[in-house]
Amino acid sequence: MKSLYFDTELSLREVPMPVRAPGEALIKVLMAGICGTDREILKGYSGFRGIPGHEFVGRVVECGNPKWMGKRVAGEINLACGHCSWCARGLGRHCPARTVMGIVNRPGAFAEFVALPEANLHEVPEEITDQAAVFTEPVAAACEILEQMTIAPGTRVALIGDGRLGLLVAQVLKQAGADVTLIGRHEWKMALAKSWCVSVSTEGTNELAAGSFPVTVDATGSPRGLGEALRLVEPRGTLVMKSTFHGAANFDATKLVVDEVTLLGSRCGLFAPALDLLRRGRVRVEPLITKTFQLNQGLEAFKYLNQNSVLKVLLDMR
Amino acid sequence: MKSLYFDTELSLREVPMPVRAPGEALIKVLMAGICGTDREILKGYSGFRGIPGHEFVGRVVECGNPKWMGKRVAGEINLACGHCSWCARGLGRHCPARTVMGIVNRPGAFAEFVALPEANLHEVPEEITDQAAVFTEPVAAACEILEQMTIAPGTRVALIGDGRLGLLVAQVLKQAGADVTLIGRHEWKMALAKSWCVSVSTEGTNELAAGSFPVTVDATGSPRGLGEALRLVEPRGTLVMKSTFHGAANFDATKLVVDEVTLLGSRCGLFAPALDLLRRGRVRVEPLITKTFQLNQGLEAFKYLNQNSVLKVLLDMR
Repeated sequence: MKSLYFDTELSLREVPMPVRAPGEALIKVLMAGICGTDREILKGYSGFRGIPGHEFVGRVVECGNPKWMGKRVAGEINLACGHCSWCARGLGRHCPARTVMGIVNRPGAFAEFVALPEANLHEVPEEITDQAAVFTEPVAAACEILEQMTIAPGTRVALIGDGRLGLLVAQVLKQAGADVTLIGRHEWKMALAKSWCVSVSTEGTNELAAGSFPVTVDATGSPRGLGEALRLVEPRGTLVMKSTFHGAANFDATKLVVDEVTLLGSRCGLFAPALDLLRRGRVRVEPLITKTFQLNQGLEAFKYLNQNSVLKVLLDMR
Repeated sequence: MKSLYFDTELSLREVPMPVRAPGEALIKVLMAGICGTDREILKGYSGFRGIPGHEFVGRVVECGNPKWMGKRVAGEINLACGHCSWCARGLGRHCPARTVMGIVNRPGAFAEFVALPEANLHEVPEEITDQAAVFTEPVAAACEILEQMTIAPGTRVALIGDGRLGLLVAQVLKQAGADVTLIGRHEWKMALAKSWCVSVSTEGTNELAAGSFPVTVDATGSPRGLGEALRLVEPRGTLVMKSTFHGAANFDATKLVVDEVTLLGSRCGLFAPALDLLRRGRVRVEPLITKTFQLNQGLEAFKYLNQNSVLKVLLDMR
């Protein structure tokens, strides 16, 4: 089958079809999305070698359990052992023996087919288009914040970063009742956010008073966001770190300790709440799609992503 | 009156007596303790100029309210405005208008007398010696962890740093029911901790498995402790940052986000629970006193503190 393969560099490569293990489904990939983590992988993050890609929608073509046959599905990306204490607590996404599709020791979705355990599958409701279903994983990542902390209605949240993830987090927190201020650099993305009734600041964080938000979120995907989020958070407040980037972060330890700030690392989330938000139209993802490429244009798609004016790029395998 | 005064360097200096404002008490300092923060101040932390010192016990010699006259007291170090929303929530130690005795815009206790608002005073119970009462502030700082998070009985805690604060945190968490492992570098301090039924590791953190503690505490007072505490904390665990040091901290952002770690800055605490623990002998502080100097030997005391074998150094003004 055709795939995008990362070795020392990314290439279009013919590879053998995935072999379905017991309990797994073979899935024909319909569409996949390129994410910031994929770009980090190309820079060396997680030392991954193989087929990247962890945002996708597909159709089950082979499966032990007949209930999945022919179903359109999204798939949770962490493959947990199912037996350890983490798995027992419903935290398979922290299972120490886990693999992660397209990120850690497991082929991803930038290919014609992918295999995944049935336990990872979620049927995609009819109301959700293929294009929108690709966003299930990043919307789940945005929803994860609500799993980790309580945000009371009306809570003022400063969200730094108007990239793909930032624009999803903005909507997820807004629909949960938060009073979100998005701090970004791009007028056109801010205009999008405004259409969702999110407050915006294009002047950067400088126009906002230090220590003026009980909750701040860094979704910049770069080390600079952390410092800005730390400046804006009030004493005893919570800074959610939603950026995955390769390398060390630097921050003012004195401020963190003196103001007793809580810094909360946040990653993958559950698919069920994400699919529910997408089905009910509470999170709008179509406006985030800049361009769609065919799988065999994959290298071009990654290059295209480097432009400033790009939000989400999809790969179409249909 | 005699005082230790920090300008560009520390000196013994004759200064005017403190002027007691309305609502304040004038206190004859009996004993004071030198803390890690005092040493950071001498390196430039907080840009403080004046009389340092924030750990003390004294006797009220002048006061508007007769109930305090002649009482032996310890004093909360944050001087809050009393009117803002922080003060209304009982969080005067985060009041944005606050001064902090011996640290931010307010003379400290390394002098014969100090003035403090009556609202900051706590009477020291008879059972507590002058020497032990000096530890009220650092014991309160250790207790602050229990104000900020719930530590269930039996919770495994890795505590890094066998300095003064580390040895207090060990005892406070132990008496709260935690299963504490103290990681230090000094056999004699470890022997002390063992006598309090705290597990110890003198091999450093290397002998302990990565991600093996639900709670870790960095009390090293240096940037290195953060990395070690981050290595030891398990996914979804909490890393309490109890170190105040001057400058930037560096940490592995990927680990924090991927493992969804909570990093909790922790500083000053309430005096009431600390005095209660001292009164009931639940925290032993006398073994931590290495040497006591007279106030006019203050410069010598600070020099003495640089030796490796020193824990707590007190100043005696009685």
